[in-house]
Amino acid sequence: MKIPPVKGTRDFYPAEMVCRNWIIGGWKSASVRNGFQEYDGPIIEHLRMFQIKSGEEIASQLYCLEDAAGRSLALRPEITPTLARMVNQRVNSLPRPIKWFSVPRLLRAERPQRGRLREFFQWNIDIIGVEDELADAEIIFCAVDYLRQVGLTADDIVVKISSRRMIGQILRSIGVAEGELDGLYAALDKRDKIPPEAFSRMLQKAVADEKVRLKVTELMEVGSLDEIGVLFGLSQEAKTAVGQVRRLFELLEIMELGDYCIFDMGTVRGLAYYTGIVFEIWDRAGDLRAVGGGGRYDNLFGLFGGPDLPATGFGMGDCVLEILLRNKKLLEKQLPQERLDFYVAPASAEFFDKAVELTMKLRSLGRAADFNYKFLKLGKQLKQASDRNAARCVIIGEEYSAGKELVVKDMATGKQRAVDFQRFLEEARRKAPGPQAEAL
Amino acid sequence: MKIPPVKGTRDFYPAEMVCRNWIIGGWKSASVRNGFQEYDGPIIEHLRMFQIKSGEEIASQLYCLEDAAGRSLALRPEITPTLARMVNQRVNSLPRPIKWFSVPRLLRAERPQRGRLREFFQWNIDIIGVEDELADAEIIFCAVDYLRQVGLTADDIVVKISSRRMIGQILRSIGVAEGELDGLYAALDKRDKIPPEAFSRMLQKAVADEKVRLKVTELMEVGSLDEIGVLFGLSQEAKTAVGQVRRLFELLEIMELGDYCIFDMGTVRGLAYYTGIVFEIWDRAGDLRAVGGGGRYDNLFGLFGGPDLPATGFGMGDCVLEILLRNKKLLEKQLPQERLDFYVAPASAEFFDKAVELTMKLRSLGRAADFNYKFLKLGKQLKQASDRNAARCVIIGEEYSAGKELVVKDMATGKQRAVDFQRFLEEARRKAPGPQAEAL
Repeated sequence: MKIPPVKGTRDFYPAEMVCRNWIIGGWKSASVRNGFQEYDGPIIEHLRMFQIKSGEEIASQLYCLEDAAGRSLALRPEITPTLARMVNQRVNSLPRPIKWFSVPRLLRAERPQRGRLREFFQWNIDIIGVEDELADAEIIFCAVDYLRQVGLTADDIVVKISSRRMIGQILRSIGVAEGELDGLYAALDKRDKIPPEAFSRMLQKAVADEKVRLKVTELMEVGSLDEIGVLFGLSQEAKTAVGQVRRLFELLEIMELGDYCIFDMGTVRGLAYYTGIVFEIWDRAGDLRAVGGGGRYDNLFGLFGGPDLPATGFGMGDCVLEILLRNKKLLEKQLPQERLDFYVAPASAEFFDKAVELTMKLRSLGRAADFNYKFLKLGKQLKQASDRNAARCVIIGEEYSAGKELVVKDMATGKQRAVDFQRFLEEARRKAPGPQAEAL
Repeated sequence: MKIPPVKGTRDFYPAEMVCRNWIIGGWKSASVRNGFQEYDGPIIEHLRMFQIKSGEEIASQLYCLEDAAGRSLALRPEITPTLARMVNQRVNSLPRPIKWFSVPRLLRAERPQRGRLREFFQWNIDIIGVEDELADAEIIFCAVDYLRQVGLTADDIVVKISSRRMIGQILRSIGVAEGELDGLYAALDKRDKIPPEAFSRMLQKAVADEKVRLKVTELMEVGSLDEIGVLFGLSQEAKTAVGQVRRLFELLEIMELGDYCIFDMGTVRGLAYYTGIVFEIWDRAGDLRAVGGGGRYDNLFGLFGGPDLPATGFGMGDCVLEILLRNKKLLEKQLPQERLDFYVAPASAEFFDKAVELTMKLRSLGRAADFNYKFLKLGKQLKQASDRNAARCVIIGEEYSAGKELVVKDMATGKQRAVDFQRFLEEARRKAPGPQAEAL
């Protein structure tokens, strides 16, 4: 009875797994060199966790389940609520700043689309306990550091940056009512993703006053920070918020990210919980969904029953990233190839058990070694050694009967040398574990 | 509003994450050097997948859920059904033998106990397409290779080995009816885990004939392969099966695992799907549950709608292993410590932005570098560099104003030297990425 995989999920055969490991390994390396420590939580949480942050209606987009006691659980669609729970649990003992990263497996019960699957992996980095824009800049740096490392240049990607606080203050000062703000953010977030008429309708629904709507439209056309002060009379709060964005851009220049970053009034992020600087990373061509995004969320920990803590973070999924890297021809050539340190080949069947012994001895020394389960002619074994990308082929034959010697063939140069069995093992022991260890 | 984690799951704070990564990293290294390739599947599968292998009633032990279309899904409690599905999907194109490993996150809706949680990680290795006992021996070798690498000796652990096929043939030849076999295996599997009276009752239920029951009890007392032939008249099939176990032990000797492995008639494994050699790894003291176990399952692929394929494999969870390593004091000392390649310290506030710039330059070169978000006195920064386990502290001060020089302090020796800024960056560029990369 043949059963298909669940729609919107992926099977990772070895070739796909190499790709996933390479992406996740790169995320982890970038996180560690940027001073972040890894954490993770369970893949199931109480459903309420996600409703606290995203409202009751989020349940329809989640995989929900019940445990034996009838408690409502859900598969995590994001890790931020778990982060808030974990930090709150130990809020008095965790040294600050908290610089954590995670690469959770996430699930959402939505219709699968290009770059948006039901099961995916997402890189998350967060800095908790730092109010300074330096933390926001560092988050952006870490994200770009990774993307640059895998070969994406400022011609390929762009970080669009704005500030929820700044936009909020300006919107207030041009007459948007407090109660209209959240709806307006949601509309603005959709602006570049829907037809102009659809946006008009959303805007009309979000803001009652027509004059205010005109001003909002005008504001969205602003192309630089400097224009804002010229075009709009700013409150003190708005000026402070503009100053923060200015300092952020100054820091991004110091970090040599100037080419990658632009100010973009239209970047507001859909989620209600952002409170300050927000940003999204896009492919320059704009063919794909956002590669990642994030921002400051200073009120989240309070929402989850803890004290207020300043926080800023970022998330990047594996699906859009993989499409982008593939489009830019940056994927295949960077994936590590399988390779063996040693392929062990008995020259005749009588040496088969000795080949098994030697292979296992080499593995015990931490070296990647393999052999064929059935005795094959030596030529076929050498072909296999080459196919398996072995650095050396160790041949056990007459030299072993005669004087306990092995013939070691360097597969790159083709050169062979005879080595005493024990001496060969000592050499193998002295050498550090092969590149296989790193390939993980 | 504070919400607890789901019972039976774990939060991995950075310290716990280091441990989990170290265990999983070791599993992966052992798999790769033994010639296995990694695969993975989705964490959700159609519920039927698990029922095919384990019966309808397995649903009560799983986290079940429904998708929007009303299909019954379940969180995977094991990965073998996924393995069978994936292999069957490409059975004609996958080169054989298939030597695959995986480290899936698994969930089961059971009462949490010591060493048995609701969410856990499990190392799985499988060889598909090889009938020879060499494959079974290699699976056992790979498992022990890992355990030996983390410091467990033959005094700590033991591999108990038997054969379902052999026991089956002997049981048939001493009069157990075909229909009684599965129930009897389940009883025998429980033998060492329940009181003798409880076992008696299970045995009575499983086997109708009292004389046969006596012979079964006698069989279970057998301590070596040699005794079997002496005590019981064996059919030709039984003799063949005994021969296979003999060859397995011969191979295990060649692989130098003799000290770790014993023949144990009582090891039959509870699951119905095993068809040949079976084994379990236990702590010698017997204080814990089995550390892992596996065996041959030649009929599984047919069950999942594919052609019959010989297969053998092994699984090891992270919970019991961690307890065992902790008990043996093998855990803490082997965990990698956080370390930085560079801690960048401005000697006065005027060099703060320069410190940010240098830190980011170093990170861009693949080096682990950090600094403090706020300017601190140099003494405090040096203390922090030491606390963070930095190899070097790079001080930016008057030497920089005077002649663009940095002061580089080796944190191990305490020695300082002045280096030109550009030259320092070139040095950092030339060196390979620091040990952080391996720590992952």
